[in-house]
Amino acid sequence: MAGSPRRAAGRRLQLPLLCLLLQGATAILFAVFVRYDPDADAALWHWGNRSSSDNEFYFRYPSFQDVHVMVFVGFGFLMAFLQRYGFSSVAFTFLLAAFALQWATLVQGFFHSMHGGRIHVGVQSMINADFCAAAVLISFGAVLGKTGPVQLLLMALLEVLLFGLNEFVLLSVLGVKDAGGSMTIHTFGAYFGLALSRVLYRPQLEKSRHRQGSVYHSDLFAMIGTIFLWTFWPSFNSAPTMPGDGQHRTSLNTYYSLTASTLSTFALSALVGEHGRLDMPGGEGHTDSSLVSCPQPVLEAKFKVQDTCGVHNLHGMPGVLGALLGVLVAGLATHEAYGDGLGSVFPLVAGGRRSATAQAVFQLCGLLVTLTFASVGGGLGGLLLRLPFLGPPPDSQCFEDRIYWEVPGEREEEAQGSLGAEETDTRA
Amino acid sequence: MAGSPRRAAGRRLQLPLLCLLLQGATAILFAVFVRYDPDADAALWHWGNRSSSDNEFYFRYPSFQDVHVMVFVGFGFLMAFLQRYGFSSVAFTFLLAAFALQWATLVQGFFHSMHGGRIHVGVQSMINADFCAAAVLISFGAVLGKTGPVQLLLMALLEVLLFGLNEFVLLSVLGVKDAGGSMTIHTFGAYFGLALSRVLYRPQLEKSRHRQGSVYHSDLFAMIGTIFLWTFWPSFNSAPTMPGDGQHRTSLNTYYSLTASTLSTFALSALVGEHGRLDMPGGEGHTDSSLVSCPQPVLEAKFKVQDTCGVHNLHGMPGVLGALLGVLVAGLATHEAYGDGLGSVFPLVAGGRRSATAQAVFQLCGLLVTLTFASVGGGLGGLLLRLPFLGPPPDSQCFEDRIYWEVPGEREEEAQGSLGAEETDTRA
Amino acid sequence: MAGSPRRAAGRRLQLPLLCLLLQGATAILFAVFVRYDPDADAALWHWGNRSSSDNEFYFRYPSFQDVHVMVFVGFGFLMAFLQRYGFSSVAFTFLLAAFALQWATLVQGFFHSMHGGRIHVGVQSMINADFCAAAVLISFGAVLGKTGPVQLLLMALLEVLLFGLNEFVLLSVLGVKDAGGSMTIHTFGAYFGLALSRVLYRPQLEKSRHRQGSVYHSDLFAMIGTIFLWTFWPSFNSAPTMPGDGQHRTSLNTYYSLTASTLSTFALSALVGEHGRLDMPGGEGHTDSSLVSCPQPVLEAKFKVQDTCGVHNLHGMPGVLGALLGVLVAGLATHEAYGDGLGSVFPLVAGGRRSATAQAVFQLCGLLVTLTFASVGGGLGGLLLRLPFLGPPPDSQCFEDRIYWEVPGEREEEAQGSLGAEETDTRA
Repeated sequence: MAGSPRRAAGRRLQLPLLCLLLQGATAILFAVFVRYDPDADAALWHWGNRSSSDNEFYFRYPSFQDVHVMVFVGFGFLMAFLQRYGFSSVAFTFLLAAFALQWATLVQGFFHSMHGGRIHVGVQSMINADFCAAAVLISFGAVLGKTGPVQLLLMALLEVLLFGLNEFVLLSVLGVKDAGGSMTIHTFGAYFGLALSRVLYRPQLEKSRHRQGSVYHSDLFAMIGTIFLWTFWPSFNSAPTMPGDGQHRTSLNTYYSLTASTLSTFALSALVGEHGRLDMPGGEGHTDSSLVSCPQPVLEAKFKVQDTCGVHNLHGMPGVLGALLGVLVAGLATHEAYGDGLGSVFPLVAGGRRSATAQAVFQLCGLLVTLTFASVGGGLGGLLLRLPFLGPPPDSQCFEDRIYWEVPGEREEEAQGSLGAEETDTRA
Repeated sequence: MAGSPRRAAGRRLQLPLLCLLLQGATAILFAVFVRYDPDADAALWHWGNRSSSDNEFYFRYPSFQDVHVMVFVGFGFLMAFLQRYGFSSVAFTFLLAAFALQWATLVQGFFHSMHGGRIHVGVQSMINADFCAAAVLISFGAVLGKTGPVQLLLMALLEVLLFGLNEFVLLSVLGVKDAGGSMTIHTFGAYFGLALSRVLYRPQLEKSRHRQGSVYHSDLFAMIGTIFLWTFWPSFNSAPTMPGDGQHRTSLNTYYSLTASTLSTFALSALVGEHGRLDMPGGEGHTDSSLVSCPQPVLEAKFKVQDTCGVHNLHGMPGVLGALLGVLVAGLATHEAYGDGLGSVFPLVAGGRRSATAQAVFQLCGLLVTLTFASVGGGLGGLLLRLPFLGPPPDSQCFEDRIYWEVPGEREEEAQGSLGAEETDTRA
Repeated sequence: MAGSPRRAAGRRLQLPLLCLLLQGATAILFAVFVRYDPDADAALWHWGNRSSSDNEFYFRYPSFQDVHVMVFVGFGFLMAFLQRYGFSSVAFTFLLAAFALQWATLVQGFFHSMHGGRIHVGVQSMINADFCAAAVLISFGAVLGKTGPVQLLLMALLEVLLFGLNEFVLLSVLGVKDAGGSMTIHTFGAYFGLALSRVLYRPQLEKSRHRQGSVYHSDLFAMIGTIFLWTFWPSFNSAPTMPGDGQHRTSLNTYYSLTASTLSTFALSALVGEHGRLDMPGGEGHTDSSLVSCPQPVLEAKFKVQDTCGVHNLHGMPGVLGALLGVLVAGLATHEAYGDGLGSVFPLVAGGRRSATAQAVFQLCGLLVTLTFASVGGGLGGLLLRLPFLGPPPDSQCFEDRIYWEVPGEREEEAQGSLGAEETDTRA
């Protein structure tokens, strides 16, 4: 993978040094800025003399754990469909999310919960950090197999920053309602990743085409991820909503929407599949997981965007549709439909400070802002990741665990030999 | 699979059309009949002015999520033990459950929670719908590998209806206590599936015998399902019981019963295994998972019932035993044993409207009603599924993913060729 | 595996008889001693007239279920990394934990919650029993692949007893705070297992060396275990702490500590890996999962301790470090840092009955007591397990499922033949 021994040694140190640098800086920032919020602080909570059952923890912790499983088990195994990239899919998910959780706590804290120069953390900040990590993992899906861990950490460093800024503009400046994270998570994560993938376009990627498919058991591992994501989605959507009826209603809506879309997806998959056969999510890039979908070959041929996991169909289009639905719902929000609950859904409309139509316009602005941040940010991220010393895998070694992992069952010399050979081939 | 191109094209449209038809009809019925219950309704909840922590959501949502994981991850992967049927096991579980959840909400709503012409849904209705889906998946286990998705959806359509009716008769008409769903879920699901499998009896099934076993890794996938089912069972049993001591006690009882039966199962498995060796659940049809078991070869030879997953031993016999235990417990129910808690377990006995003995008789009636509904219903279901145009897999192609799925790593022509050949063979 | 048919028949009965004996004895002890605690008892709870939301169940049940998943899914699959020992890893975890949960309920009950001659059980006793099972599974990791199920059950019988005694001495006699179970679970479990493994030292174990590695998919199964353990760790640590701010704060601390240690672990793994490549947990015995680690070859060469899962690095060293950190924290505990919450963390210091320095000394004593109990107990356990009639696997058949399981896809005669041959070889 390297031209000379010295460069190889230098590259070998990049990942550990970057990890230690990021972790060291994060630890210092935590020590200086981060404090417990009153529900988690021994002195403040006992001083407040409140009943244990009123602690925010009991309203949100079970949902938080479900979201946490989605991030680490769900995304990790969803991306394990590639036949020779299972280690990297699961473990880079792990690495990226572990960094993003800490960095997002700081970034979101600066933007949303800075009080007296301190960031206060509790179960809500854990949920919010996991949401930000989900967006990073969506972007990871677009470039899966074509980027190394150093590149991915730099991507996360930039993306979390822009995620926090975009979230701040939408929620705090524009007063937008973002149900299910349609805009801040799905749209932002998908188009950030796709813009980045566009900049990293590899015209010779078919050299790795034989590794880009799945095998029987790798698809079953991917099903573990898929089903955990699906099963816990009601928790994902209800975790951050208002306690009481808000969480209750959101989980119900998600539960029924998911079941309905499952039947529709099976219908579509059987219609478009050759010989009426169905496709597993994975193998062919999840083309079947969304009702409105742009075939990946088209995406690549027309727009030069190589989207490994099909995040355009899985998150991009659904995110945009969800956002547009939000515009519609805002425009129709009335006291009659929501009663006194309107305040918890659209507080500015309930308070008379904004008409329903104005809210709809602001919702639409939120979507445009998100698309702008995502595509410009992703483009900049792509330029950053093209820095030559970051050592991306060669075209012929994409989607291959062996360049990052000690893969069991392979003899060392063999691996070296074959990697070396293919590399020469690439540079030729 | 098809006699002529036209018939093949027709068959190709069956699954998508049925999915869209069922989903369309369900959506219309939801729009007309389904409303939020007061704990999930923004207007009603805020009008009631209650504390968030009293919302039913917090008493039941964590248990609901555990049950949801059992249905989708547990049942799905439990059935993935077959070497070439993992995609179908997981994905048809997904399809069937997604349909059953919606349809059960409607059917159970009509029977149990119709107020003012409307069905009110909340966390309890989600739990109940998941229970009904579990019964459907138990039945699926009996016919696993021998039925296509169109047949399975029709089975679910009928079974959910009868499940709702049986549940209504037991709980509302007979006033029966059905702890752990022994009767409504396990007994009903198992004997519905077995009766259906009896009607679909295939004397030539040994043509697919070589695919009916497991392989090393497919058994490990099945263990994922088994262990999630086992681990979350305390939640399954306690999810619908009375808040407070009721849920607490039920989860404890389940926890200790499961640990005790695990040791007994290992003992039995080692006793009956050849050379003292143990059997994995899966391979040999879970004969070891129940203490009282009827060997599957006997079931097939004597009763012509082909029971792929061994649901007779896993759910049928244990369900009947649980129901008989319920008869016994009801007969012994006294104020001394339960104190003021008797009202939450046997309200009719506590209220003096029924003697303990009478309650025991009603419990027994409940079991007989369940067995009747299940076997008659399953038999009718079998006749329905034998409609010739539904296209079941030929005897030689049972337990084979390739007829429904694009299996990775297989060349298209090859697959077609071999399927075609075997088909000819079948019809010969 | 046996010299003569009679011995073979005798050995064949050992496992079922031991299971039935242990289960029978446990059932009798439960019937005599175990009762519901007031929060789970129908009569007592309704008599108390308390609100359902105050039931202990709602403060702890979601965390309990997470811990339960860690024990059965997490530990079970974590140990499934061996290429030919997946069935045994998952199923012996199942067997050991199912026994340990019941036996721990009795032992911990005798030591901690005996009132009026009765043990009262509830959600807290379930959590405590799962913790004890976790310690047993940590010990299992040290001897994985080298011990049969009869040996393992005897190990659990002894270990649970000593675990309960050690826990009693630390928590009740010495008044020690054991955050995250550093001492009672991790240190005790690891050194009990390592001492036991030392006594069972096999100089000829390299005869099974070729089975001691992982294969690609077995490492992915191990990742399922690893990631569930990691994801639910905040629940593990917060499950037994004080309701309210205590659980909240503990989950936060665990969440951020884990993310920080993940980045550090990646850095270290990349630094020490050959060619800068990373190691999966599993294959090479988790040498990379702890920051302070003693290479396993050194452990074996110098101390004759064969540690299959690397529990020294995964649990032993981290447990000791955690305990030493606890000494430091105790020494610095002041009212200024904790406010009124000090009482829930170090009640003896808060109540003025002990100085912070004295508490630190007691913490250190706790660690020494734990190391003593673990190493002496593990040594005795090793002697017990060396009883010749317990039938351990021969050196050449370690790490092999086939001697305990009907492995799918193998013909009976073949298996017999090859096992017989290798056995002869061993005894030669």
